[in-house]
Amino acid sequence: MDNKKKVEQITSMEVDFAQWYTDVVKKAELIEYTSVKGCMAIRPYGYAIWENIQHILDGMFKATGHENVCMPMFIPESLLNKEKEHVAGFAPEVAWITHGGSQKLEERLCVRPTSETLFCEHYANIIQSWRDLPKLYNQWVNVVRWEKTTRPFLRSREFLWQEGHTIHATAQEAIAETERMLNIYADFCENTLAMPVIKGRKTESDKFAGAEATYAIEALMHDGKALQAGTSHYFGDGFAKAFDITYSNKENQLVHPFQTSWGVTTRLIGAIIMTHGDDSGLVLPPKVAPIQVIIVPIAQHKAGVLEKAAELKEKLSSYCRVKVDDSDNSPGWKFAEYEMKGVPLRLEVGPRDIENNQCVLVTRHNGEKSVVSLDELESAIPAKLQEVHDGIFARALENRKKRTYDCTSVQQIIDELATKGDGFVRAMWCGDEACEDKVKEMTGVGSRCIPFEQENLSDTCVCCGKPAKTMVCWGKAY
Amino acid sequence: MDNKKKVEQITSMEVDFAQWYTDVVKKAELIEYTSVKGCMAIRPYGYAIWENIQHILDGMFKATGHENVCMPMFIPESLLNKEKEHVAGFAPEVAWITHGGSQKLEERLCVRPTSETLFCEHYANIIQSWRDLPKLYNQWVNVVRWEKTTRPFLRSREFLWQEGHTIHATAQEAIAETERMLNIYADFCENTLAMPVIKGRKTESDKFAGAEATYAIEALMHDGKALQAGTSHYFGDGFAKAFDITYSNKENQLVHPFQTSWGVTTRLIGAIIMTHGDDSGLVLPPKVAPIQVIIVPIAQHKAGVLEKAAELKEKLSSYCRVKVDDSDNSPGWKFAEYEMKGVPLRLEVGPRDIENNQCVLVTRHNGEKSVVSLDELESAIPAKLQEVHDGIFARALENRKKRTYDCTSVQQIIDELATKGDGFVRAMWCGDEACEDKVKEMTGVGSRCIPFEQENLSDTCVCCGKPAKTMVCWGKAY
Repeated sequence: MDNKKKVEQITSMEVDFAQWYTDVVKKAELIEYTSVKGCMAIRPYGYAIWENIQHILDGMFKATGHENVCMPMFIPESLLNKEKEHVAGFAPEVAWITHGGSQKLEERLCVRPTSETLFCEHYANIIQSWRDLPKLYNQWVNVVRWEKTTRPFLRSREFLWQEGHTIHATAQEAIAETERMLNIYADFCENTLAMPVIKGRKTESDKFAGAEATYAIEALMHDGKALQAGTSHYFGDGFAKAFDITYSNKENQLVHPFQTSWGVTTRLIGAIIMTHGDDSGLVLPPKVAPIQVIIVPIAQHKAGVLEKAAELKEKLSSYCRVKVDDSDNSPGWKFAEYEMKGVPLRLEVGPRDIENNQCVLVTRHNGEKSVVSLDELESAIPAKLQEVHDGIFARALENRKKRTYDCTSVQQIIDELATKGDGFVRAMWCGDEACEDKVKEMTGVGSRCIPFEQENLSDTCVCCGKPAKTMVCWGKAY
Repeated sequence: MDNKKKVEQITSMEVDFAQWYTDVVKKAELIEYTSVKGCMAIRPYGYAIWENIQHILDGMFKATGHENVCMPMFIPESLLNKEKEHVAGFAPEVAWITHGGSQKLEERLCVRPTSETLFCEHYANIIQSWRDLPKLYNQWVNVVRWEKTTRPFLRSREFLWQEGHTIHATAQEAIAETERMLNIYADFCENTLAMPVIKGRKTESDKFAGAEATYAIEALMHDGKALQAGTSHYFGDGFAKAFDITYSNKENQLVHPFQTSWGVTTRLIGAIIMTHGDDSGLVLPPKVAPIQVIIVPIAQHKAGVLEKAAELKEKLSSYCRVKVDDSDNSPGWKFAEYEMKGVPLRLEVGPRDIENNQCVLVTRHNGEKSVVSLDELESAIPAKLQEVHDGIFARALENRKKRTYDCTSVQQIIDELATKGDGFVRAMWCGDEACEDKVKEMTGVGSRCIPFEQENLSDTCVCCGKPAKTMVCWGKAY
């Protein structure tokens, strides 16, 4: 297929952001649709991004003492029903298995929408004494939620994720774990994905089903909509009581332990696309880009060019993920192709470059060119990749600043959104759910989180005028 | 729990091999049962083995040009029905989703028992020209087959595996891929898991549903039963025709491509246990052992012992997976614990060792002790780990030799099995399915494969006496 055409087929972000997104995920070959409604095929280039995310996050989990396990993918209905709030939250959106082969099952099973119930049953089996605590578990698995409207990566019936599940002797330890993992997510988003996030607590109405407290990180997408990029839940001993999990403490008393869970999903890939992408396609954060440097030989039919490109590839591959495109497509075709695929750095090398022992480096996110000596690549390339990371982070932060509106009245919220477009609204709140609902109804933005970093924007609730308790970050959610 | 007790609770292999197996998987904390019938929870120690298997195999796949993808876990019934032999083979053992939330689905979906149909649909979407071929794909996922009798790792309703799916322009290329991947599996089993395997082709009656040819590697377990450790299938263009996959070749004609698939599963963990284990528990091949060296401090309350143990751990961790057990359990308890867990190498260090700048190394599989200077550990430990690998491979090969019976009559098969116990039987075969069935009926051993390495044991079929075509390897299957 003609590649210029492929790029031209990407709808402009300004014209239709949703269509731009769909075009990018398809044309950059991240996914393909399937006949399984609401489920996608993740293609090699998309899956390689997920593998890089997994690899880095998994290292962070293990460095903080977590171990990977794997629970069954099915949950018997009676097990799902054990914790009342939890089942109420999830039962309406699970897929039910009713038959195995030609036999009707005695009890139907759902495909896990999340695995708290399975972990609880497991804990009850394996935990007896304080010596068995804590257990810091994680699993990388697929889960299913029967969504009505789906979009690749952002909301699909099946998705891939990791779910951490931990159990502790004290509430204090469990709360510390909940916070620690939220911090790890924020660290990962900012320092690996170059995506600024706001850390905060969810309001009561927005908590995970069965949690005492839900923390989240919220990111602002290019179009001004908010995306929940990760969550971390503190359960208290509610699940332990419902599932009869006990341990004998040092005083030899049987008591209930305290639990947490936390997760991020393939949604992060959607977040990357909508945070950094532009009208030419993807812009990938260097740390998770499947290809960090694409080498494009110029005038490759000339003697020595392909050999030099191959030699450079060989050298570079010891410190970055690099590919040479020596196909017979034109350099222009290749430029467009790898721009669309969001490769952070392009290295051009032609006969004149070789003569001068140099090459041209072009950074994807801003198109800047520089001429670099071939002897300096080993320091220049890591520096350029860091420059790209810093550059796209700064750009995303700038976008968020430009689109964050501090408001003291509902009318001001309406005006800001109308004149400046969607974004984060920061406004004070009395803590009353009625005000939360009313703000959403009147302005279209819902509460995203109560940021850990609080500011006192005014003394009164943006909605009812009564004394304010906290500053809330509001937004339109993906 | 008292650990001596834990080891004593392991049934002897000679008394009851099946019970020994169950005891080991439970007591070594590889798995725990769940209330989901036929499905297990894989615990950290078991999952870490799988992670090591994945890591090494995935590297071998990528080194041979394969890319990872992820297809949906569901298959619509109409899609499963497209290839007649395939659906006939799998439909009786799939789990059916009939409801999403409270809604009955218009078409029921099965949970993938294998993903040929999904890959075929995907290929039909993405392949147009010869330039798009080959596609060398793999995925690491969970699959479900509704088995009646289940055993941890060996046969469970849900299991983890990798399934490779490739598509090629020519039959020749696809056949070469099928053979290449079987060779990679055999290489992996022998050089990573220290498990000797026989490579061969399945007979017609034992082929994968929809395949033109199925290749397999067969291993002999400690009890003389055969275990199929991996399979590789050549599909010809049968699936391509059923799913209408075509490409335009260089002559611009629309033609069908040729396909393969190949897989290994968590069953490999069962194979490891039953190939190398003994009455004290697991014996793990060093290359996939979660802990390769366990450091046990002796008289650890004495000054300097724990410090030295920690110092050694620090040093060793740059070249092996090492752990110190500095808990207050006795050295004897620790010896039994890590023997049960199959840790290949124990390093004991006490006050007198420290004085002499030495330590004691004990190899798990044969209990051999050696005294090694602390200055020589960096070469001694990798050498010992290789020694363990070689030692357990030789032992397994010896067991297989001892239990391989070359037979020229059905009566001889019966006699050999009766006097020497279960094992591989090698005998000539005319190629007639009736003889295959009859041998199984009369002797209890079925055809495992037609080994690539053929020998002419006699000119006539072991069953009917007509001219023999091939030597077959027979056995009782797990």
